[in-house]
Amino acid sequence: MRNIKLTISYDGTRYKGWQRLGNSEMTIQGKIEDVLSKMTGKNVEIIGSGRTDGGVHALMQVANFRTKSKMSNNEILEYLYKYLPEDIVVKKVESANEKFHARYNVKSKSYLYKIWNYRYHNPLIRKHINHIPERLNISEMKKAARLFIGEHDFSSFTSAKSKKKSRVREVYGIDINKEDEIIEIIIRGNGFLHNMVRIMVGTLLEVGLDRMKSDEVLEILDKKDRRLAGPTAPAKGLYLYSIEY
Amino acid sequence: MRNIKLTISYDGTRYKGWQRLGNSEMTIQGKIEDVLSKMTGKNVEIIGSGRTDGGVHALMQVANFRTKSKMSNNEILEYLYKYLPEDIVVKKVESANEKFHARYNVKSKSYLYKIWNYRYHNPLIRKHINHIPERLNISEMKKAARLFIGEHDFSSFTSAKSKKKSRVREVYGIDINKEDEIIEIIIRGNGFLHNMVRIMVGTLLEVGLDRMKSDEVLEILDKKDRRLAGPTAPAKGLYLYSIEY
Repeated sequence: MRNIKLTISYDGTRYKGWQRLGNSEMTIQGKIEDVLSKMTGKNVEIIGSGRTDGGVHALMQVANFRTKSKMSNNEILEYLYKYLPEDIVVKKVESANEKFHARYNVKSKSYLYKIWNYRYHNPLIRKHINHIPERLNISEMKKAARLFIGEHDFSSFTSAKSKKKSRVREVYGIDINKEDEIIEIIIRGNGFLHNMVRIMVGTLLEVGLDRMKSDEVLEILDKKDRRLAGPTAPAKGLYLYSIEY
Repeated sequence: MRNIKLTISYDGTRYKGWQRLGNSEMTIQGKIEDVLSKMTGKNVEIIGSGRTDGGVHALMQVANFRTKSKMSNNEILEYLYKYLPEDIVVKKVESANEKFHARYNVKSKSYLYKIWNYRYHNPLIRKHINHIPERLNISEMKKAARLFIGEHDFSSFTSAKSKKKSRVREVYGIDINKEDEIIEIIIRGNGFLHNMVRIMVGTLLEVGLDRMKSDEVLEILDKKDRRLAGPTAPAKGLYLYSIEY
């Protein structure tokens, strides 16, 4: 069996997220599996680096699947490009080591969150950016962001219900950049809990809006209580940005 | 009567263009007039700096209208922001000199044309950029662009049928910049004929694809024959970019 690695980008607007949910639902995994199954004549299952929620985009998602197909990597790439809907693009098809697993082998991941910070929304990019009309205090947001860095229990920053699994994750870095009206927040870490990036961003925005103080982040981490953190920022501003193996 | 100047940006994707075409058609002018007429209780007509075709966007469009309304400029701005569809945003409402005319008083205008130059399209910006998969020779395109600069009869570069009006226009400058996979072409001039920018870009692309030589531009200008120029580049990559009075 060959083990094939896919590098994918997508506009998540129309989808219920990455993970397949039955056969009739619009999911990115489902769309790609359907095309690969048609291509090979066999039922293909792909393993993604992780799930993305409904409405979340990816500049870089990675997945792998096993196949006996004799098609070259380039033929697979061309087939996928031809038959996938135009909001999902497989950019690369590579032969991977037989042990490569797109989820288990992730070393670090980063997410990008985009904010349009101006009184009025931008009609041309409105579907792929979160609009915040109020002035944001970027330097306070940067102070708060630094407090997330390191290994923490992120129970206050997830909507995951199960308490059986560890909620300890390490955040390697957070960059916040503003250029004209666009603010980009990039968060790198060894892994992220469900909704963790969106709740971290929602909390940073509370700080930026002066509704929360930057040093409250430490207390919220400490208390392990979702109700203390900020709201979950909208999916449409979030992009899976890169994955390192 | 007050004379009010509007600065507008829009995503042209859903529209048949700027100009009102009867009451049932989707046009930008129509949408804005409908909201202003509802606001004032009178039939409002707005004058745009010029038309944009179906599917063409605007980062900056300017229009004016006359009204006896007692609402402040800021109240008009807020009303328009509230009632216009989210793909049309009036960014500024200003009091203009009584003689100001958004079309007649234009001194210069510029258009931006965006190209995604990579083997595969970009799913996140696909609706607002023209995708050219083949490699483009940018330095030849720049050579060809220089030949457009100055005052010329642009008969070869318009789909306008009427020969009664002058087809002489002056192009002040053309900038072509490539950053990663994105090429931006900005064309400034004192005015543009119908489809002129799109046919100029279509011709520059023929040069970039090595299907036409850069110095053929002079001959095409000289022959005044639309069939000699390149194809009309797709509307979705074109943005009305700025207007100077």
